[in-house]
Parts: sequence; structure tokens; C-alpha cells
Amino acid sequence: MDRPSLPEPEPLLALIEALRRLPGVGVRSARRMAYHLMQHDRPGAGLLADCLSGAIARLGHCQRCNTFTEDEVCATCLSPRRDPTQLCIVETPADQNVIESSHGYRGLYYVIMGRLAPLEGVGPRELDFERLIARACDGVVQEVILATNFTAEGETTAHFLAELLRSRGLSVTRLARGVPAGSELEYVDAGTIAWALMERRAT
Amino acid sequence: MDRPSLPEPEPLLALIEALRRLPGVGVRSARRMAYHLMQHDRPGAGLLADCLSGAIARLGHCQRCNTFTEDEVCATCLSPRRDPTQLCIVETPADQNVIESSHGYRGLYYVIMGRLAPLEGVGPRELDFERLIARACDGVVQEVILATNFTAEGETTAHFLAELLRSRGLSVTRLARGVPAGSELEYVDAGTIAWALMERRAT
Ligand SMILES: [Zn+2]
Ligand SMILES: [Zn+2]
Repeated sequence: MDRPSLPEPEPLLALIEALRRLPGVGVRSARRMAYHLMQHDRPGAGLLADCLSGAIARLGHCQRCNTFTEDEVCATCLSPRRDPTQLCIVETPADQNVIESSHGYRGLYYVIMGRLAPLEGVGPRELDFERLIARACDGVVQEVILATNFTAEGETTAHFLAELLRSRGLSVTRLARGVPAGSELEYVDAGTIAWALMERRAT
Repeated sequence: MDRPSLPEPEPLLALIEALRRLPGVGVRSARRMAYHLMQHDRPGAGLLADCLSGAIARLGHCQRCNTFTEDEVCATCLSPRRDPTQLCIVETPADQNVIESSHGYRGLYYVIMGRLAPLEGVGPRELDFERLIARACDGVVQEVILATNFTAEGETTAHFLAELLRSRGLSVTRLARGVPAGSELEYVDAGTIAWALMERRAT
């Protein structure tokens, strides 16, 4: 559909181009979004502009755990009720929330904000693993729990970090693989069952 | 995934909420977009904020044809090389461009910026059909060509407008239905073939 012979006004073209910076948005969705905002939701467009500017101005990364925060160090890292000898490494703040909602962990976190993806050019340097290592080697942390995703890229990231951290004398663990709580075996995939068998425990 | 127990910073939450105003964007995509912009593309976020503000400030609707323009009346409506006795009614500027790229039309346009969709609460009032009627009844227009889409909603819109405009003494036509140019019949759907048979012409 990219054959306009009537020129679109410049502000509209610029807006369509800018919307394409959003992940997963191609030129057709961007045009639909731009038309929608300009035709039906100018207050929404204004709100979005303000929130983008506000987030740019006010949102930084925690100096200790790298999650998004408005402060130098986030509330979690500052909490005296956290066990500073445990450090859980997650890919994103959303993953951090999943761990937190389990109520099974009271240590601290480090948020990678990504995962190793060599094909996309995302390596240890892009993810600033030096900073992660420095955080883990603060002399207080004793155990690092790798909680990256159980995807190919998450597993690669976990293996890579495990070697780095173990070589520095830290105890490194990984979340257990197994059958999800509440599952009927009939509906669990074979790979998961295989892992659960291999990692079976005496009861 | 909506069970955060670590509070997300307010500017991030506000940005996620604002991104949900975009059509087709749910809470998960909005969060992914917000993380992406804040983590990997702050220049893109700034650009988007500027383009939104710029479009709000500078983009209006043509007083005559209702398309997006920075001026009171758009260049197409002002052109002396256009035939003012023909008025082609389309749903969107994108549709207008398709007509234009056919090089088969030299009249003027009216852009509805939508179509009748009673189930979504979009009726003649929401689309300001009074303005469309006033435009078509300027005393110069003689033929109105309905070029709404050949979807259920586009057809409904065309039927509705055809009655309104015919009752005001205008000649009303509709784009012809038929076999697309360059098609092999084997690959054309039966409904299209049926229309092409019904509307067959002497040759
Ligand atoms: Zn922190
Ligand atoms: Zn115009």
C-alpha cells in the first residue's frame, strides 16, 4: 500500500515514521495508529507525548540492580529486610515480579534488561556483564540464582553467566526444571517430563 | 502477567497506560514497547514525543474534503486542474491514494475518515454526514462516486449515502465490481465471478 500519489502532510509522515520505532510496528500499523490518534484520540496523543517525555526525564536504572527506577538506588536494593547474601539474576523487571510474587525469595536481584542473542548482535558487552560481575563480587553475595528464561537464549545466558561467576568463587544455582504445580501430567510436554524424571528427588 | 508485587516506577506505569491508547495494543505489548524505548531507544521515544506534539499542533482537516492537512483547504481541493463536478467519497486518505494512483480520476474527493459501524457506535452523526451532504450539495457537484470499501461496513455506508444523496437530486455511482485486472479466473473467488457475470457488459 506504499504508493501515495497525493502527498501526506509532513507532520503525519513524521508521526508514522516515529511510530515505526515501536517494536512490532510496521508501516501499515503505524499509519493506522497515526490516523486513529489524529482522527479520534488527540487527547491520547497528547498524553502519550507527555508520558514519553516524563519517562525520558525521570526514569533511570538502579545503580545496584539495574532495574528501572526514579531514584539512584531502588527501594528493593535499599530494603534492610532483604538477604544480601543471595542475588537472583533475571532478564526483565517483569520476570523479577514473577519471582517476587512466588513469595519464595527474600534476597536481592540483578536485572539484565535482556539476554544473550548473538544473532541479533547482543553479546556480553551489550548487556554490560562486567557491571553484573562487579555487583555479584561485592564480597557480600554468596549465592547467585540464575532465573533467566528457560528458552534457548535464556539457557545460553545462564550457562555463560554460570561459568563466569563460578570461576570467581561464587555458588551458582539455577531455578529447578520440573512439572508445574497443579499440572495434570497428561497435559505436560514430554521435554518437561524428561527433565522432571532426571531431576527426581527422594520423598 | 498482571501481578506485580514490586511496584513499577510511576513514569513507567504512566507510559504503559498511555501506549495502550494505540489501536491494537494491549497491556503486554504496551509494557514491551515501554521497556524497549526506555532500555534501548530513548532517542526514538523523544522523537515520537516530538512528532505527536507536532502533529497535534499542526495537523487539521481540510474544510472542503476533510482529509488531513496543515492548511485550511488542501492542495487537491484548491487545484484548478480538478473537475469540480465530480466528488469521490472514500473512507480514508489511504483509499484516496489508491484511487489517485489509478490515474483514472480527475475530480475532487471527500474523505469520511471512517465508515458506518453501528455495533461500534459509529453512526451518521459520529461521521458528520451533514457536512458531507453540504459539501456534495454545493451546486457544482453533479456526480458523487461512492468508493467506500467492498466490505460489509463499506457497502452499508455506500447504500446509506446513496439514498441520502440521490434524494437531493445528485447522480450517484459506485465503483464497479468485477474480475481484477490481470487475474486468472482460476484464482478469483466465486463471489467476485458472480458479480462479474451479473454486471457483464456488451463488447
Ligand atoms: Zn535496585
Ligand atoms: Zn481538501
